[in-house]
Amino acid sequence: MRAVVLREHGGPEVLTIEEVDDPVPGPDQILVSVAHTALNRADTLQRQGGYPDPRGRSIEIPGLEYAGTVAAIGADVVEFEIGDAVMGIESGGCYAEQVVTNSRQVLRVPDGIALRDAAAIPEVFLTAWDALVVQGGLTSGRWALVHAGASGVGTAGIQIAKAIGARIAVTCSSGKADACRALGADLVLERSPADWLGALQAEVPAGVDTILDVVGGDEADRNFRAIATDGTIVQVGLMGGGKAPVNMGLLLMKRITWVGTTLRSRPLERKLDLCQRFASEMLPLFESGALAPVIDSRYRLDDIADAHRHMESNANVGKILVDVEA
Amino acid sequence: MRAVVLREHGGPEVLTIEEVDDPVPGPDQILVSVAHTALNRADTLQRQGGYPDPRGRSIEIPGLEYAGTVAAIGADVVEFEIGDAVMGIESGGCYAEQVVTNSRQVLRVPDGIALRDAAAIPEVFLTAWDALVVQGGLTSGRWALVHAGASGVGTAGIQIAKAIGARIAVTCSSGKADACRALGADLVLERSPADWLGALQAEVPAGVDTILDVVGGDEADRNFRAIATDGTIVQVGLMGGGKAPVNMGLLLMKRITWVGTTLRSRPLERKLDLCQRFASEMLPLFESGALAPVIDSRYRLDDIADAHRHMESNANVGKILVDVEA
Repeated sequence: MRAVVLREHGGPEVLTIEEVDDPVPGPDQILVSVAHTALNRADTLQRQGGYPDPRGRSIEIPGLEYAGTVAAIGADVVEFEIGDAVMGIESGGCYAEQVVTNSRQVLRVPDGIALRDAAAIPEVFLTAWDALVVQGGLTSGRWALVHAGASGVGTAGIQIAKAIGARIAVTCSSGKADACRALGADLVLERSPADWLGALQAEVPAGVDTILDVVGGDEADRNFRAIATDGTIVQVGLMGGGKAPVNMGLLLMKRITWVGTTLRSRPLERKLDLCQRFASEMLPLFESGALAPVIDSRYRLDDIADAHRHMESNANVGKILVDVEA
Repeated sequence: MRAVVLREHGGPEVLTIEEVDDPVPGPDQILVSVAHTALNRADTLQRQGGYPDPRGRSIEIPGLEYAGTVAAIGADVVEFEIGDAVMGIESGGCYAEQVVTNSRQVLRVPDGIALRDAAAIPEVFLTAWDALVVQGGLTSGRWALVHAGASGVGTAGIQIAKAIGARIAVTCSSGKADACRALGADLVLERSPADWLGALQAEVPAGVDTILDVVGGDEADRNFRAIATDGTIVQVGLMGGGKAPVNMGLLLMKRITWVGTTLRSRPLERKLDLCQRFASEMLPLFESGALAPVIDSRYRLDDIADAHRHMESNANVGKILVDVEA
């Protein structure tokens, strides 16, 4: 099969396409013929050598999600049949024509979602739902704050918050505010040079109940000030840097919970459990139309380097998709 | 009744005894005739003006726990009768001959525990159990780390960890190591000048699952390095300072949960719930002998200033009790 292989780490030019061996499914696995994959911030980190595939394969193929059709099933697999339209997350290997995965990790493409759009769903909706709802305790009536509201995770987070009856504030760079409002954000706070914290505190004086933060850095201290008593901050990225002083007095006084998390490094059994729960709680909302993938742009697999350059320009609103099938 | 009243904040000399009005129980409350109270670190902070009683009473009486007998009951109280031996936590007011409290917050003195020892139980055992087990997820087989192992909370934490089948490491100042070992600590790490982190990592290479930290300050960064993947750090105090840089990369990579908490500031309904659960899960272990109060010293109420001076000398192992009855 054709796949993007990292033979060295560096700029987008190190993303080169090679012929590699087809993967072979084990008894509890399925082989997916990948039609589309999508970019994630972790991919650019991995390309630069900063976030290796935790599976430690000898050939490093990036790519954390896919949409495609079932091409072969292991002897013990009962959930799927050949030809089913499926999508899912992986720890790597999805910039490729084929992927092998545990059958319990596979999600059915919801009715009403085109296969060509489905690869925009798994990573960002699973991440946003896990962070806001599962770990962050967001419920109806409560306030969420999501940084980078126009990112893939941000656009998913806005939709999920509104779909479950919660209220949501987002920060974003100027120029992306209208896109966030169009998705339903209750409060859109433009970052620098504006003072998002002051604007948030004016609108939500008791503070927000759940924060999903992909930024870290200096935002960590502001998150402590923005959160409500008994609130939860879920840290899913550190695009703004990983070292910062924090005010532990606020941690104590407000009884804050600060959780670091990544989907990718979790053990398999936890991923399977999360995917099954996501299938129950979130996939019906795509079928009802309450949730929809947000697609910024599409690239051919041969143009994967351009796709990375686009992500690194920070111009996207929603997901950058890659068509793998010719 | 006689009570210690704070008319100003400052050194131990501001603790003066006055005659104040007797409290009167409401329908769901009981009046306790206080026989003994005990000191907590929060009391010295409150005396200095740094931790006001969250109830905001006009007369500021410190004191967070008591043991005594039921002197009167409200019309709706069914759990207790006059003369019952009881103990409990309060947000303040226990340096006094009488306390009024919600009946669901009151704990029965366990069989086999003398009333004169019972005031050494509520605050430290509730705090250590809540932090290690309820919020920290400590179970049999797992490793806990408790800083200040010879403190009231530390001595309670060691006993609770052993009683539920967990393993426990503690840090302590030199001179208190034998006391921690005698209580059952599996690993005793003397702090400065020794390198507790290196010694811990040598013995528990995968890291500890739950940390109960009353210190904060520079220990925050070491806690991040000492914790295992998916571990929980419960911050219950900041004796070492409240501002410190932390490594958020470790928060993410290890999927750490860092929780700030205090018993005192929680809403009443949560305290009642916690006390009822503590009565079910922990009080039987006092009756079986698995848990026992650790008493450092006793003072008369008239000598309350000396009791504070003793706590501030950091010489105690376990609780400093105060006899309120003449």
